[in-house]
Amino acid sequence: MECYLDNSATTRVIEEAADIVREVMLKDYGNPSSLHNIGFSAEKHIKRAKEIFVGILKCSPKNIVFTSGGTESNNTALTGTAIFKKSRGRHLITTPFEHPAVSQVMSFLKDQDFEVDYLDVDSEGIIDLNQLEDLIRDDTILVSIMHVNNEIGTIEPIREAGGIIHSKNPNCLFHVDDIQGFGKLPLNPRDCHIDLLSASSHKLHGPKGAGLLYMSDRTHISPIIFGGGQMNGLRSGTENVPGIAGFAKAAELIYKGLDEKIANMRTLRRDFVEELLKLPDVNINGPRDEEKAAPHIVSASFKDLRAEVLLHALEDKGIYVSSGSACSSNRRTVSASLKAVGAPDWAHESTVRFSFSCYTKKEELDYTISVLNEIVPQLRKFIRK
Amino acid sequence: MECYLDNSATTRVIEEAADIVREVMLKDYGNPSSLHNIGFSAEKHIKRAKEIFVGILKCSPKNIVFTSGGTESNNTALTGTAIFKKSRGRHLITTPFEHPAVSQVMSFLKDQDFEVDYLDVDSEGIIDLNQLEDLIRDDTILVSIMHVNNEIGTIEPIREAGGIIHSKNPNCLFHVDDIQGFGKLPLNPRDCHIDLLSASSHKLHGPKGAGLLYMSDRTHISPIIFGGGQMNGLRSGTENVPGIAGFAKAAELIYKGLDEKIANMRTLRRDFVEELLKLPDVNINGPRDEEKAAPHIVSASFKDLRAEVLLHALEDKGIYVSSGSACSSNRRTVSASLKAVGAPDWAHESTVRFSFSCYTKKEELDYTISVLNEIVPQLRKFIRK
Repeated sequence: MECYLDNSATTRVIEEAADIVREVMLKDYGNPSSLHNIGFSAEKHIKRAKEIFVGILKCSPKNIVFTSGGTESNNTALTGTAIFKKSRGRHLITTPFEHPAVSQVMSFLKDQDFEVDYLDVDSEGIIDLNQLEDLIRDDTILVSIMHVNNEIGTIEPIREAGGIIHSKNPNCLFHVDDIQGFGKLPLNPRDCHIDLLSASSHKLHGPKGAGLLYMSDRTHISPIIFGGGQMNGLRSGTENVPGIAGFAKAAELIYKGLDEKIANMRTLRRDFVEELLKLPDVNINGPRDEEKAAPHIVSASFKDLRAEVLLHALEDKGIYVSSGSACSSNRRTVSASLKAVGAPDWAHESTVRFSFSCYTKKEELDYTISVLNEIVPQLRKFIRK
Repeated sequence: MECYLDNSATTRVIEEAADIVREVMLKDYGNPSSLHNIGFSAEKHIKRAKEIFVGILKCSPKNIVFTSGGTESNNTALTGTAIFKKSRGRHLITTPFEHPAVSQVMSFLKDQDFEVDYLDVDSEGIIDLNQLEDLIRDDTILVSIMHVNNEIGTIEPIREAGGIIHSKNPNCLFHVDDIQGFGKLPLNPRDCHIDLLSASSHKLHGPKGAGLLYMSDRTHISPIIFGGGQMNGLRSGTENVPGIAGFAKAAELIYKGLDEKIANMRTLRRDFVEELLKLPDVNINGPRDEEKAAPHIVSASFKDLRAEVLLHALEDKGIYVSSGSACSSNRRTVSASLKAVGAPDWAHESTVRFSFSCYTKKEELDYTISVLNEIVPQLRKFIRK
């Protein structure tokens, strides 16, 4: 049996999305900027894709900028705001465990003389909203908070944070990295006072190489990629039409009956966690309260077991998981998320992430539990010798 | 008959490339950063793609950075150099008719207190090499010159320019926008003292959403997109594995027997230009000397005819061409290239670009000539009434 439980790293492209990618490459291959029909046919795919995301995000087509992926969306939101607003202020606020596509941009901006404050989080990874209110200043130009933590699955109180930012400093923009939440948990940018929101195609069974940046009506930022002026000047370069069309198709399929899918994933997750906790010396990282935990991420620390050893032992049985966030290029680093929630030292070397998709089946998880029951004691015995 | 003669705007993806894109999306869908086999299978496609480009560019795998396309490659080269070298100097040199993916970045950098000098070009669009030598200063950090002009097809003397830059200021980097030249004309970066070279997939029958930036061994620049540290830290973000694999496949096919393909395109172009010039009041823009003109671009000005009228009349007959460069998003602007070569005012409104691919057939061009012979006098008669 093959169980791919690394869906937060990337997903298999769904057949319908792969079909449309191929069709666009071969049939509607034009440049959307061309003034002839072959260009217009390509442009129609962009328009149709926008309509789909407009329906999902309850916004207008002009609020959608397509990018090459979530990392570019995050970079555009942060650096674009910094360039555009630097004369108004140079203060930024974020969390201590953003994905590197946010945290590394923050480090870059610090080098460019911006000031960055990091919010505290509690043992479940929830940000301190009172502290957020205290930290916002007149010269704060941007707050960036992830919707769902990619390592431990904490759902951040985005709506409350948005309300606080909006009332404390209406000129401050609010960016949400929704790369792990998009297609997993509904989020209405307008209701939450979100100005910038990043999403990625390949995390929800769309093709790699496509993402989007939502921008509220009031948001003005600088592009970081200049050229032909595509995407209202915010993202130049010939649009990745097949990628965008595939992204939209995958999102359309995911958002159909999403509530039911979420309920189903929650049930799977509940049972899976329950079974995991029957194993001795296993910690589940992240919120205990189900409502605060993403339905598709389970971070589990196995005492006295190195994560990589477990990962490869699972792989031998056809089960694919991740150690760390697996979005950063093969580098071994201490997990920012585990550190922020105060996980014990041993957990850093012994944590595995199981991540589901709405297409994950109960049998896969049952199989995974049976394999864990078999191999975890074996591996521990071997190591303890 | 359908004649797509807008290959410099974009190309139809070749079947073999489309096949591999689909295969990777469905089978080798992993994240190359994942530590399990599904990740490794994806990573192999990146490695294989690098090998193909290493063969083409006569370099090492570490010299290749994959990006989301030509525009991003140009932006990375320019802004990345500016960020990295700003303490050493703030002077840049370029041509007056770069693609917006270079010229607009230069404008942005001017806003950030960089100084930009523009080279003069002659009536054929060839840069002034003596002036280049004069303009290079101790604080010149980058010279950016396109290999092939996208509007009028001029081939710039890249090797000579590289030699001058290298001997006048060895610390100055040399960037070549090779987006119109890659897959059309061989260019050896090392021989030409090129430090940074941009290429795009969708101009050579690969998928949109992929490009590359060649970086010489000595080149150190800043990334413009930060995150997980992929591509040696120079381009973060989960790699567009299917796009990269498709790009490499298309390039491999194009570079097989390229010399013969070039010779064939030159013959087609020669005959096509000869027939065009038999029509009254037609100017060919760009070099008269065949060795200085790209084999795939014909820029023709039709006196007393508006380009868009001609474009749509051709479209009615199944012939697809471009007015202006068609890479910029639907904006009507005066052509920087026509202006730089001193074309008469009427030419700005009356110029059409025919652009071939190595897959363009003689019959298509013969058909185009017969259609032009039919419609150009008709349209002129109608307009002159």
